[in-house]
Amino acid sequence: MSLYIGEFIGTMILIILGNGVLANVILWRSKAEGAGWLVITVGWALAVVFGVYCAIAAGAWYADINPVLTIIRGFMGGYTLLEMIGVIVSQILGAFVGACIVWIHFYPHWKETEESELILAVFTTGPAIRNVWTNLISEIIGTAMLVFPFFALTSGKIWSIPAYLLPCIVGFLIWAIGLSLGGTTCYALNPARDFGPRLAHALLPIKGKGTSDWSYAWVPIVGPLIGGSVGFLMAKVCF
Amino acid sequence: MSLYIGEFIGTMILIILGNGVLANVILWRSKAEGAGWLVITVGWALAVVFGVYCAIAAGAWYADINPVLTIIRGFMGGYTLLEMIGVIVSQILGAFVGACIVWIHFYPHWKETEESELILAVFTTGPAIRNVWTNLISEIIGTAMLVFPFFALTSGKIWSIPAYLLPCIVGFLIWAIGLSLGGTTCYALNPARDFGPRLAHALLPIKGKGTSDWSYAWVPIVGPLIGGSVGFLMAKVCF
Amino acid sequence: MSLYIGEFIGTMILIILGNGVLANVILWRSKAEGAGWLVITVGWALAVVFGVYCAIAAGAWYADINPVLTIIRGFMGGYTLLEMIGVIVSQILGAFVGACIVWIHFYPHWKETEESELILAVFTTGPAIRNVWTNLISEIIGTAMLVFPFFALTSGKIWSIPAYLLPCIVGFLIWAIGLSLGGTTCYALNPARDFGPRLAHALLPIKGKGTSDWSYAWVPIVGPLIGGSVGFLMAKVCF
Amino acid sequence: MSLYIGEFIGTMILIILGNGVLANVILWRSKAEGAGWLVITVGWALAVVFGVYCAIAAGAWYADINPVLTIIRGFMGGYTLLEMIGVIVSQILGAFVGACIVWIHFYPHWKETEESELILAVFTTGPAIRNVWTNLISEIIGTAMLVFPFFALTSGKIWSIPAYLLPCIVGFLIWAIGLSLGGTTCYALNPARDFGPRLAHALLPIKGKGTSDWSYAWVPIVGPLIGGSVGFLMAKVCF
Repeated sequence: MSLYIGEFIGTMILIILGNGVLANVILWRSKAEGAGWLVITVGWALAVVFGVYCAIAAGAWYADINPVLTIIRGFMGGYTLLEMIGVIVSQILGAFVGACIVWIHFYPHWKETEESELILAVFTTGPAIRNVWTNLISEIIGTAMLVFPFFALTSGKIWSIPAYLLPCIVGFLIWAIGLSLGGTTCYALNPARDFGPRLAHALLPIKGKGTSDWSYAWVPIVGPLIGGSVGFLMAKVCF
Repeated sequence: MSLYIGEFIGTMILIILGNGVLANVILWRSKAEGAGWLVITVGWALAVVFGVYCAIAAGAWYADINPVLTIIRGFMGGYTLLEMIGVIVSQILGAFVGACIVWIHFYPHWKETEESELILAVFTTGPAIRNVWTNLISEIIGTAMLVFPFFALTSGKIWSIPAYLLPCIVGFLIWAIGLSLGGTTCYALNPARDFGPRLAHALLPIKGKGTSDWSYAWVPIVGPLIGGSVGFLMAKVCF
Repeated sequence: MSLYIGEFIGTMILIILGNGVLANVILWRSKAEGAGWLVITVGWALAVVFGVYCAIAAGAWYADINPVLTIIRGFMGGYTLLEMIGVIVSQILGAFVGACIVWIHFYPHWKETEESELILAVFTTGPAIRNVWTNLISEIIGTAMLVFPFFALTSGKIWSIPAYLLPCIVGFLIWAIGLSLGGTTCYALNPARDFGPRLAHALLPIKGKGTSDWSYAWVPIVGPLIGGSVGFLMAKVCF
Repeated sequence: MSLYIGEFIGTMILIILGNGVLANVILWRSKAEGAGWLVITVGWALAVVFGVYCAIAAGAWYADINPVLTIIRGFMGGYTLLEMIGVIVSQILGAFVGACIVWIHFYPHWKETEESELILAVFTTGPAIRNVWTNLISEIIGTAMLVFPFFALTSGKIWSIPAYLLPCIVGFLIWAIGLSLGGTTCYALNPARDFGPRLAHALLPIKGKGTSDWSYAWVPIVGPLIGGSVGFLMAKVCF
């Protein structure tokens, strides 16, 4: 049971801090309004760091907090099919609850923010230039750039990074991807990260929130799944 | 005795660097004027890092430098009631003295700064949108997000982070909270951090300093106390 | 064989993240457009960190990902002449492929960006004030400031930094050079970093891309080679 | 002999990267022009990190790269009087040579920069609001905030930080001081850091460079000496 609680908790923390930094920077009258891309990318990097630490402490086996990694682990024999499904459901639930907590935290700021696109941008990822095929390719490349170096770090081939430091170095990796490749589609890299909060956006009673843009929702699910497979296969070949 | 000196010193360093970064960014004619949210959040993160290092070196037992953690430690049997009270008084005194040192350091800048609200913002936390109930909830969530991951890091359940690195990782955590959740109420998270400097604001002879806004002072005391309890209970359940 | 694959992979990752951050900040309609010098320098620092980690995991012997270091290693007896040439060719190929991946990742943004100089700046380094002699000196000083401290870190004379941490500290060094010395010629420091992407710029079908500025191309090759020699000789004398 | 070479090299690196970041941000037509306070403070923090690493690798005993620390070490019996004087002379020479290298690196940018105050600001520290007594107090507080935590980190009382990590954590400390207390007098904290480059400013042939402001030069010498003593005495009492 602690496996599922760990993944739920970890993904919840990921989204509280990750969607939190978006709310902090985007919502009107926040003291951090307009703080810029560096703040957003550091925020997401640290969201991953503390999501992973909390997931492990709460009993997760690998602290994936990302269905892409969970499916790869399942494929490698780390989970049974049932465990894999349970973990993914826990991650989506955690992401959903995390988004709700962000909504509560910034409660008076939603009605101050008069553009529905900005409110959506706190919850979900979205493309800078809308074109599902190029957007899909961006998510594929971004996620491959997460999974391939991730297995470089954990392959243990040459030197082994101490376990307590790994979450920080993975946080650096997330920072790198955001800084270098994030400007095209907001780097979902993680189906739960986009789907859970999008569901929250659809369900929460936010005035003038506008559409939840479900037509785009498959891109940050399919892209990361393909990109994760590409990165994993490359890692299998190289490491 | 060194317990109280350690907590006094640590909280003083916390406030010299923490309120210091606010003065540096907010006060007029400072070379760092208008340097932005990232500078403020890094400044507070490092304030915690070196507050903790100095507290430990000066003899504190746990280097709480925050009454919320002190009360939790007392509850867990780490302090007697008298020690707990002594530690909290030391923290408040340290925060008060720290704020006075910031006042001296930036001495010629106070009279250059013509808005009393800015002067107050160097000393105390304050809400972006004033509503005590939503502000209270923000402080509760923010402090829970400090205490819960803090116990994840120190639970020692799976891997143990070396003691010399812990202050740095806790600093990262403070950075994360500031970046992601700080824009609503300036993330006090710590009753001594707000109360000590507010007292200094009330007592120091600053021209045109305006009100010390005591009507808000209970929020950054009660919010962190509730939030710390929530975070601690969640940690008890999960870790 | 894994030696060459490692250097190819490492330099590819370096350029995906390094040229990636330039694209992210420079190209029009990117969400990170105009994010500034700090973002660029952190992006390159992390590009080196993960380039090195991936190079090692994929089988590189020293993870140079820079012909300057490769030639120094060859001179020190770490490679035969043939291995040295093979490594350098791998690095240039990796840089070329990395630049192509950046081109794909930002595919719809190229035609949005209407200034050909900006498109070139995503691929290559260039001088702030064009004067080949002063530009050459800048690249010499910059690369000496990479190689000299690099050998200080790896000399193992006094304390030895754990191997798993070295890539991070070298990343800090790259960050320092970018922050402090990068504003004159965009700090190539690495012939492959400039030549591979310049080739990609010349060959890729980008509308309105303008000249590839081959007349400047020798500066970021010759400068780093001289600077690397200077830094290495100084290191030999001092350490 | 290596003691003096180490301190010379370390202080030279400190000033190349430290004054370098000022040149990079301040000089006109640099690609980093106007990059802001965060860039300046990170640049100086990393300047200290790599100054210390290089000083140690080149044979310095303690890698002070700051006469204030050297005098304290001498007082503690770490140097004879003659060694102490030799070390301080080496530091000043290193700072002077470092400033000359920055001048060469940015050669074409000096004549582009039409305000003599900006050129001076690349070399020396200066007050935001000129008043020698309050400026002196700022340097005293700033340097005490360097020396006191420095001895907390190295006291080894409770946990001992690995030697290879200490330069990084001291770099964080320099970052913290810059972010929080640097806006009043540009935080010299180090007599050699101000005096060496001021001498270089006076001697180098820079068109329109204006005065070297020698009337202020005693403040960043006397202030750090007093502040260092205060910090050291406090450390003696507390640790």
